[in-house]
Amino acid sequence: KKFQDSLPIICFLREMKSKHDTRKLTHSIKVGIALVLVSLLYLLDPLYKQVGENAMWAIMTVVVIFEFYAGATLSKGLNRGVGTILGGGLGCLAAAFAQEVGGIGNGIIVGISVFIFGVAATYSRLVPKIKKRYDYGVMIFILTFNLVAVSGLRAEKVMQLARERLSTIVMGFSVCIFTSLLVFPIWAGDELHDSLTSRFEDLARSIEGCLEEYFKFVAEKEKQSSFSFSPCKSVLHSKSKDELLANFARWEPWHGKFGFSYPWGKYLKIGEVLRDMAANMLSFKGYLHSSTQSSQDARGLIKEPCEVVGSSLAWTLRELGESIKKMRKCETTSLITPKLKSMRQELSQAISPSTLGELENSDGIEIASFVF
Amino acid sequence: KKFQDSLPIICFLREMKSKHDTRKLTHSIKVGIALVLVSLLYLLDPLYKQVGENAMWAIMTVVVIFEFYAGATLSKGLNRGVGTILGGGLGCLAAAFAQEVGGIGNGIIVGISVFIFGVAATYSRLVPKIKKRYDYGVMIFILTFNLVAVSGLRAEKVMQLARERLSTIVMGFSVCIFTSLLVFPIWAGDELHDSLTSRFEDLARSIEGCLEEYFKFVAEKEKQSSFSFSPCKSVLHSKSKDELLANFARWEPWHGKFGFSYPWGKYLKIGEVLRDMAANMLSFKGYLHSSTQSSQDARGLIKEPCEVVGSSLAWTLRELGESIKKMRKCETTSLITPKLKSMRQELSQAISPSTLGELENSDGIEIASFVF
Repeated sequence: KKFQDSLPIICFLREMKSKHDTRKLTHSIKVGIALVLVSLLYLLDPLYKQVGENAMWAIMTVVVIFEFYAGATLSKGLNRGVGTILGGGLGCLAAAFAQEVGGIGNGIIVGISVFIFGVAATYSRLVPKIKKRYDYGVMIFILTFNLVAVSGLRAEKVMQLARERLSTIVMGFSVCIFTSLLVFPIWAGDELHDSLTSRFEDLARSIEGCLEEYFKFVAEKEKQSSFSFSPCKSVLHSKSKDELLANFARWEPWHGKFGFSYPWGKYLKIGEVLRDMAANMLSFKGYLHSSTQSSQDARGLIKEPCEVVGSSLAWTLRELGESIKKMRKCETTSLITPKLKSMRQELSQAISPSTLGELENSDGIEIASFVF
Repeated sequence: KKFQDSLPIICFLREMKSKHDTRKLTHSIKVGIALVLVSLLYLLDPLYKQVGENAMWAIMTVVVIFEFYAGATLSKGLNRGVGTILGGGLGCLAAAFAQEVGGIGNGIIVGISVFIFGVAATYSRLVPKIKKRYDYGVMIFILTFNLVAVSGLRAEKVMQLARERLSTIVMGFSVCIFTSLLVFPIWAGDELHDSLTSRFEDLARSIEGCLEEYFKFVAEKEKQSSFSFSPCKSVLHSKSKDELLANFARWEPWHGKFGFSYPWGKYLKIGEVLRDMAANMLSFKGYLHSSTQSSQDARGLIKEPCEVVGSSLAWTLRELGESIKKMRKCETTSLITPKLKSMRQELSQAISPSTLGELENSDGIEIASFVF
């Protein structure tokens, strides 16, 4: 961290760009460093004499494996390694078997085995569970199996070829792991943690904004409204990103405050509940822009209890978000539950004059109490 | 189609599996065929004499490029082609320049150029717009640039090497295009079209189910409810899949009823409106499971108008979905608009006794009228 701060160029760039862009720049520079490191296999004579043309595979590994998040790099690298070993092993067997037969049968057997393994592996790639975590590994399996089985017909020393390639892939992998995990690592777990906790804040702000908007006078409303539902929408559409991040985070080793078998699955569940709540929030859009709305007077009647409820809902959300962020047990739980109960009662009293807008809160509480 | 039906094995498998699985199987078999075709470069002596070890690149191209949807294959293939050409060209330049300098400066210049291009290209991969459509191309650019620049130090005939590799990649690409586009193609456009139209039906069914559930007697409710919101949820979370499919569909050539510059962007917009509507539907969940609900009598009061409105909403949705499916102008538009207007009036009358449950429909209409 110190080192990075002392470089004037990086300081300048950092001022120019937001925190997010700095991370992108860090990642790009890390990739550049890894590429130069792995190119040394070609550039330095003593190393080149050892590995020869196979250095190509190390470069390929670095380019293909190096991903933005440390977990993604690790997962791709392990997938590639296992896929290569399995594919190479089976490929050798197929080639050896084909050579036993010899003659024209040789080529036919290789062709048939390529077809069968290709079909089976491709089909397995389409199974959702495998696709999610091992897609890349299966692809590498197909590739390696094919290359080894087919070139086994020509090269006499398949085993040696396979061993050399594997060793260069391991070299590329270690360069990746070194730069990805040890030099300013970008953890998918951190990202997931931050994005989840910031969503609590987003929702709290949306509730407040929404209520404010709702109780504005008509005259004010005609001015451009500053309130938008876009944070709600982004919460709503966070599902696929969450799943991706959780998937990477599972591969990541112990770091920072996250232990080894950290329950990333729970993040997904909390995310689900937040999305439900965002969906509820979005449905208030209709009330805000509706013209056949209850009169101003009616709104005035329910204004006070609604605002009380709204602000304590927002407070509750912030409290929960904060406690997840700091990873401590929510100390105020004992406070929150009775508070929500009393809010519900207050609301059902306010409902008895039964004015329309009321529903929007009772609904929110429905979900908030669902969080518990 | 005829040919596929006549094979007994495929018939048998088709009976066993659903339509979706048949497509997966078709895809797997197509990949198998493509792999065998491209392996012929190794297996047949006359072909092998022409291409030699470079046949490896053809196999690699097939394995990496061949995707489930025709559009995805095409997009990856073109990305790979353009990335290889650009990377190869720049790599040759860098290698030539380095050779001019000679000596130790040679290696240093190659190292610096690898670093600069690596950083720049990696950073551009993180720009959302480029990431969405050209991610793979940029990756291949980095890879090819590196390999060519670095091996330029060793091999004298870089140009020839590059040309041979490019020609084998083109071979692999043509095998892919042939099997992917001409043999039972699986179009991303068709998939997007079908999934969008089926969502109209899903929502219509959800509206009906939701109303039915709402007006059930309490006693009945205690039985297990058959109604679930899962179709609504799947509509809600369709965003990322839609964007992926539309992205692939844009690459696909003219096929079936879809023209060349078919407005796939509009599908995304319609999808957005449907997701808004699904979010509204989901917010009714609160009403269904709420215990502090309006009494049975109050519900009875509004039952009739609600059911009328609900069924015509469902009808409208089905009509719209049908018209998009058959790609004809919706003939009933002149009917729908006044119908929705009269529904809205009917509802505002029903609201005057101001019972709670009413809101759930006025809200649905809000959105339905928003569709127009």
